[in-house]
Amino acid sequence: MQLWGGRFAKSADQLLRQFNDSISFDQRMWREDIDGSIAWAQGLANANVLTQVEADTLVDGLRQVAAEWEQENFTIAAGDEDIHTANERRLTELVGSVGGKLHTGRSRNDQVATDFRLWAKRAISAVIEQVTEVQSAIISSAERHHDTPLPGYTHMQHAQPVTWGHWIMSHFWPLERDRRRLQAAFDSADELPLGSAALAGTAFPIDRDFLATQLGFSRISQNSLDAVSNRDFVADALYACAMVGVHLSRLSEQLIIFSSQEFGFVRVDDAYSTGSSLMPQKKNPDTLELTRGKSGRLIGLLVGLMVTLKGLPSTYDKDLQEDKEGVFNAVDTLAIVLPVMAAVVETLQINADKMAGQLEAGLLATDLADYLVKKGLPFREAHHVVGAVVQAAEDRNIEITDLALADLQQISDLFSDDVTAAFSVAGSLAARNVVGGTAPAAVLQQIEAARRCMTE
Amino acid sequence: MQLWGGRFAKSADQLLRQFNDSISFDQRMWREDIDGSIAWAQGLANANVLTQVEADTLVDGLRQVAAEWEQENFTIAAGDEDIHTANERRLTELVGSVGGKLHTGRSRNDQVATDFRLWAKRAISAVIEQVTEVQSAIISSAERHHDTPLPGYTHMQHAQPVTWGHWIMSHFWPLERDRRRLQAAFDSADELPLGSAALAGTAFPIDRDFLATQLGFSRISQNSLDAVSNRDFVADALYACAMVGVHLSRLSEQLIIFSSQEFGFVRVDDAYSTGSSLMPQKKNPDTLELTRGKSGRLIGLLVGLMVTLKGLPSTYDKDLQEDKEGVFNAVDTLAIVLPVMAAVVETLQINADKMAGQLEAGLLATDLADYLVKKGLPFREAHHVVGAVVQAAEDRNIEITDLALADLQQISDLFSDDVTAAFSVAGSLAARNVVGGTAPAAVLQQIEAARRCMTE
Amino acid sequence: MQLWGGRFAKSADQLLRQFNDSISFDQRMWREDIDGSIAWAQGLANANVLTQVEADTLVDGLRQVAAEWEQENFTIAAGDEDIHTANERRLTELVGSVGGKLHTGRSRNDQVATDFRLWAKRAISAVIEQVTEVQSAIISSAERHHDTPLPGYTHMQHAQPVTWGHWIMSHFWPLERDRRRLQAAFDSADELPLGSAALAGTAFPIDRDFLATQLGFSRISQNSLDAVSNRDFVADALYACAMVGVHLSRLSEQLIIFSSQEFGFVRVDDAYSTGSSLMPQKKNPDTLELTRGKSGRLIGLLVGLMVTLKGLPSTYDKDLQEDKEGVFNAVDTLAIVLPVMAAVVETLQINADKMAGQLEAGLLATDLADYLVKKGLPFREAHHVVGAVVQAAEDRNIEITDLALADLQQISDLFSDDVTAAFSVAGSLAARNVVGGTAPAAVLQQIEAARRCMTE
Amino acid sequence: MQLWGGRFAKSADQLLRQFNDSISFDQRMWREDIDGSIAWAQGLANANVLTQVEADTLVDGLRQVAAEWEQENFTIAAGDEDIHTANERRLTELVGSVGGKLHTGRSRNDQVATDFRLWAKRAISAVIEQVTEVQSAIISSAERHHDTPLPGYTHMQHAQPVTWGHWIMSHFWPLERDRRRLQAAFDSADELPLGSAALAGTAFPIDRDFLATQLGFSRISQNSLDAVSNRDFVADALYACAMVGVHLSRLSEQLIIFSSQEFGFVRVDDAYSTGSSLMPQKKNPDTLELTRGKSGRLIGLLVGLMVTLKGLPSTYDKDLQEDKEGVFNAVDTLAIVLPVMAAVVETLQINADKMAGQLEAGLLATDLADYLVKKGLPFREAHHVVGAVVQAAEDRNIEITDLALADLQQISDLFSDDVTAAFSVAGSLAARNVVGGTAPAAVLQQIEAARRCMTE
Repeated sequence: MQLWGGRFAKSADQLLRQFNDSISFDQRMWREDIDGSIAWAQGLANANVLTQVEADTLVDGLRQVAAEWEQENFTIAAGDEDIHTANERRLTELVGSVGGKLHTGRSRNDQVATDFRLWAKRAISAVIEQVTEVQSAIISSAERHHDTPLPGYTHMQHAQPVTWGHWIMSHFWPLERDRRRLQAAFDSADELPLGSAALAGTAFPIDRDFLATQLGFSRISQNSLDAVSNRDFVADALYACAMVGVHLSRLSEQLIIFSSQEFGFVRVDDAYSTGSSLMPQKKNPDTLELTRGKSGRLIGLLVGLMVTLKGLPSTYDKDLQEDKEGVFNAVDTLAIVLPVMAAVVETLQINADKMAGQLEAGLLATDLADYLVKKGLPFREAHHVVGAVVQAAEDRNIEITDLALADLQQISDLFSDDVTAAFSVAGSLAARNVVGGTAPAAVLQQIEAARRCMTE
Repeated sequence: MQLWGGRFAKSADQLLRQFNDSISFDQRMWREDIDGSIAWAQGLANANVLTQVEADTLVDGLRQVAAEWEQENFTIAAGDEDIHTANERRLTELVGSVGGKLHTGRSRNDQVATDFRLWAKRAISAVIEQVTEVQSAIISSAERHHDTPLPGYTHMQHAQPVTWGHWIMSHFWPLERDRRRLQAAFDSADELPLGSAALAGTAFPIDRDFLATQLGFSRISQNSLDAVSNRDFVADALYACAMVGVHLSRLSEQLIIFSSQEFGFVRVDDAYSTGSSLMPQKKNPDTLELTRGKSGRLIGLLVGLMVTLKGLPSTYDKDLQEDKEGVFNAVDTLAIVLPVMAAVVETLQINADKMAGQLEAGLLATDLADYLVKKGLPFREAHHVVGAVVQAAEDRNIEITDLALADLQQISDLFSDDVTAAFSVAGSLAARNVVGGTAPAAVLQQIEAARRCMTE
Repeated sequence: MQLWGGRFAKSADQLLRQFNDSISFDQRMWREDIDGSIAWAQGLANANVLTQVEADTLVDGLRQVAAEWEQENFTIAAGDEDIHTANERRLTELVGSVGGKLHTGRSRNDQVATDFRLWAKRAISAVIEQVTEVQSAIISSAERHHDTPLPGYTHMQHAQPVTWGHWIMSHFWPLERDRRRLQAAFDSADELPLGSAALAGTAFPIDRDFLATQLGFSRISQNSLDAVSNRDFVADALYACAMVGVHLSRLSEQLIIFSSQEFGFVRVDDAYSTGSSLMPQKKNPDTLELTRGKSGRLIGLLVGLMVTLKGLPSTYDKDLQEDKEGVFNAVDTLAIVLPVMAAVVETLQINADKMAGQLEAGLLATDLADYLVKKGLPFREAHHVVGAVVQAAEDRNIEITDLALADLQQISDLFSDDVTAAFSVAGSLAARNVVGGTAPAAVLQQIEAARRCMTE
Repeated sequence: MQLWGGRFAKSADQLLRQFNDSISFDQRMWREDIDGSIAWAQGLANANVLTQVEADTLVDGLRQVAAEWEQENFTIAAGDEDIHTANERRLTELVGSVGGKLHTGRSRNDQVATDFRLWAKRAISAVIEQVTEVQSAIISSAERHHDTPLPGYTHMQHAQPVTWGHWIMSHFWPLERDRRRLQAAFDSADELPLGSAALAGTAFPIDRDFLATQLGFSRISQNSLDAVSNRDFVADALYACAMVGVHLSRLSEQLIIFSSQEFGFVRVDDAYSTGSSLMPQKKNPDTLELTRGKSGRLIGLLVGLMVTLKGLPSTYDKDLQEDKEGVFNAVDTLAIVLPVMAAVVETLQINADKMAGQLEAGLLATDLADYLVKKGLPFREAHHVVGAVVQAAEDRNIEITDLALADLQQISDLFSDDVTAAFSVAGSLAARNVVGGTAPAAVLQQIEAARRCMTE
């Protein structure tokens, strides 16, 4: 039948196969599929469903199949709709009819769930390592510039002085939380569904704990209907990846702004920006922009899976075939974005002079208020006094640090000689020596705390 | 430099190139890129920036490049980061240094926007045609079964009788609205950005209206800064595709339920379902499930783009490189989903007996109330009387249609002989002869109206 | 029964009522509900289902109910689960048992769809007007500063000079596209579902075209099953609102950056920013930040509805009660955001000196290349020559505009006296006089084109 | 100034206040704000910034303010833009100018973050408890019907027999995972930001560990810039709520289908469905539909926050004011949805006869294959034999269980007397006695495991 054949390049058959088959993308799980089958063969032997000789034959055959994949000479045949049928087809070619015993008591439903979880655990571990790379680069930058001052911003407006070390470390902790989210996704994936069969549980006396141990799962699923349709671990992984994307978009955004000619605080290394022989002053921070842009993709992938899961009956529905491409895409995206971000941070040129040039006296207004509070003035009144000081400076068109002590004393008699000490960037920084504060000493302690987190 | 080289398979260089380059996916716009360049070359000649001989040389060269693509022997070179550099590089190889004149007064920013819009217009037109296929299949099914009755549902509960023709046509109109949305997306794309250069407009006296005519655009952009960063047409296309996905998910959902053994109303043709030699009663409606599931992907792609655009400064930022893969994915998805859905509907087996078997008397309760209203009883009172009738039938454990006239008259003296006529599925259907109603005559009119929409 | 009563403050009954009832939010459609009922009463009389006297009594009663709402003395009673039951209950109190005839041939399903569409049309019209306000403010700013130069950016890096008028107009056109999207949403809503009854069409010979005319709808629905479950118009409205949100986030983003001390290009008027008596240099552009932030809400509302619709059977399901709060929220959000944005733009202080201060010679590199092209050099070679010029300037640590003609001629003999003319911001701007270009003359034409769009 | 005053009902001033102020929604955190301030006052005294007498005065005053809230006689004044200014304003009215000392060394930025985290911890704990209610109802239903058989479905098609207990427990485990996600969100919120001041850390020697202990936080934040802008805990909470929504949509979907007349497996109790006096056979499962529909809202709220966070610079931006309404909405939604779902499950009427009526012989095909495998036939061959058996039965138009042994033996000589035992629903169920299988004995063990999880 060729209902639409006249209009479209592909035949109905080709279209349908393309629609139903997943071999084009799930072949990347070939290793996990082999691993799962090896464990299953041994599990069947342990349960006396297969003889040990049969199991050994299967295992040897599976290892041969694996070798073909590894050496990139596995050939996908016409009927191989997914990685599972492909591997079993090849196995049977290699070992003969005993190959037909491998699928005893097992279903594609629990098989694919097992393979996918094995893959997810490996993939999430790799993302965790890549996040750690960025964190290391941040720590190294923070250490080099733990006391380099720049304006701290709220609402993108100058607020109070902070140090570069403190600022860049403010992007370490979100990633640390991401690592915890990724670890939670890993734990979510770390449950063996094998033995659930199509939906109701296998009818053979398989020792599922043995399978879990063989395959490195820390626990086994408790409900077969749930086990074959549970894709929470994928959602958890996509959520964690999306949050990484959000955090990197925030870091990128700020570095892009800091890279503008108007700020000039940083310069992305030539290797990670694109220049122009025509406009050589132009260093487009392309890598940061792409990173920021890819947060959209990562959030979209999470939404996609959640929508697919919405309203789905429990146990296996084919809708679930939509579970893989998204997380493959997310993991592949981060496998580029994260190493590039690590390198960008590592090689970032920081222009301390430009940052210092923006440290105007207005940034010290809070320090002046704190000075008055320490003299006993209630904070809300101190706030008003500083307002008057600012007004006085503005009236004379000078900075508040240029007012004479006498001028200040006209506004409040709490001012005395020691006010000049409060009126310095270094003093302002040093005063914020609380845990998590911007004082250089506190930043060094923060870096130590960060290092401890990473080695935990 | 190999900052992270030790840990990752790819070198920094490879990773970066993979990150920045778009040739892997934007090569599918090779034809549009050539078309755009041909128009541009002629535009430059018209403006006396090039001689006509130069322009002709460029056009000839571009046609050669196109031929290479068509014959699938275009070779992508190492430095070809995107389709635009690839085509220009090859052009210059073919025609020599005059190739370097093609880019005069043009920038990759307006070039890519032009190519992408040309591609989008073609792609959206194809989707419109594919939607039309499904609509045709629906109309054909509606016609064949314009008077086949089945229960109509609200809240998935039996409500009133309807016809299959009416029911299946309830999925025609959402697609008709989708066609309008797709048309709006087409109109959105149908604006020429070429001549905007990098951001500020070209400095050469190009006749942009000429370019528009050459390339089939119905209007030209009015602001160069906007023109190079405007991706609204992509969002519009993704929104239209996502709504197609939502509508197909609703149709799929219902057909999946109708395919269950408990309903048994329809059977998806063997070609579009997967069976099992083991459980031959099992006809898994895989294609419908995949279609339902892919609504997630389509919504996710829309979200992805909107997030990428959020907070982006106007004029070109590299984040916009994320604009293409999503819509490519959406269009490719629908290019399979829609033809398959057309075929599923076309070949669907409808079991009129099973549907008739569910037409119990309770479905006619509304007709009984309408009968009393026509006798003059206020609707709210008729409602109560019918409640009493139902109770009487339930007390005797019979259906309401089995009550004798005398029994009815004990409840209300408005009942008389003619009540039996009101008490039939055929009567119930025929009564709903308003425009848009389920009466077979109205359904035939509806089909006519639908046909008119499609040929407009 | 009080299953969870011990643990929760509310009784099961209260919880359930709160869950099922919609009166708390749908009462804002009181006027549309009355309007719909008045038309329906007359429609019933025209069809001789009611006498004209009965219809007049109903209409009078409905007007009394409307007056109570208008005078804010309508009292919601305990059993009023939604605006429709509330109005009918009150009507019957006022006019007696004839009130029970109003609902003849109608169902809450087509009634609520009609009311909601009436409301949507009014609400969307208001949003269109609010968008127009922002557009007017933009045009007015563009006109005042049509020739005020500032750096144009790509990748947030200096690229070429543009004018303020051109820049701010780049935010006019996205809003113009939004108006078209809003208009499409209006057209989508502009279809009368009344007469569809619960699902199968009314059984009374109602003239639906009469109803449409009475209620100002331009067409009637063609399928009753679709008509009661079609919420595409809500999705269309939410999509249009979300795109407004995205566009405003882009404008906000850029104005926030331009407001930073480092840029200093603009200053948000005191009325629309929050200051601090403590740090008086601080003008937090809160309104712009809130506007940018609310794009999240608007996108989220669109996603919410699409997810709710996904996989829903056609005809009415209670899930659809989730259709209103989202769009109410979106419309209310824009009813604040848009007028505030109009005022922010209207009152924005523009610091031409600060912008001029950033116009360094690097911005003119493209003009130098264009100069050489006009002398006959292929663009790609001109590009290289300019690279050499830039290098020469950099070697002497001067700007390229400071190189002597002799220096230039050492690099290329195409340079002659007239090069200085190409080397000016004014010259660069004036050269880009194509439609949509940044030349002051082109900007004035653009403003004219914009005005025409708005009055179309 | 009244720029838009002519067109809109509200003055610019009112609009702006409504835009900027958060008191309308953040007043629900009044208790947390008081708690935070009490701890801060004592922290200031411990650091000798206040005298103990001053601190005691503040604490007493704050307790008075709390009492006013509790007794619902706190009056919000005109200038109270948020709960923090409202409480401090009232405090100062009550205790005089010492009230102005409370804000010493603190900023609204760390104050609001602290209050919000306190609130989030309480709110998440409540959701966890509500989830547990549903889990308890599921366990109770599973126990009552641990051996009641019904068809198990894949692709909504009959697959193999399962028990109700097993089926309903397949909805227990997703909720168990949700509890872990909620717990992770709680842990995420469980970090004290107080002491971070506006952005750089407080300049007073506050013991932050003391504050944490006082307020019940298990750790303190490590970077002040991050602490004031970190809303990951909100995203975590919204993600966990959205996943609850997804899981409930899946349970609802299936119960809605099971409630249809065609299935008739369950009947939602009258208290949780809406009937119709007109169509009394109609029991609309409204509560389940609303629950399913609200998954859209919950996913949309997550998306909304993630979009707001995307691209935001670190430290406080006003965009973050969008952080609260979403999670308030999510928590309020679940506070109704979850208890109602618990009650629906608790009171659900299960029709064992209807379920048994669907247990046709086709469901036992897998058991027949397993029978042959146990006789030594490779699974893939057994699969083919069963296909032949099915074909034989179909040829005679009987069920496979009605074939005589002789008939079977014609197909394969592996069949013998004992085949009838394999051919029963009870036998099929009992055979699946693996951990997580559907055998009644395994279900009882599963229930025990579930109970252990809940008491851990």
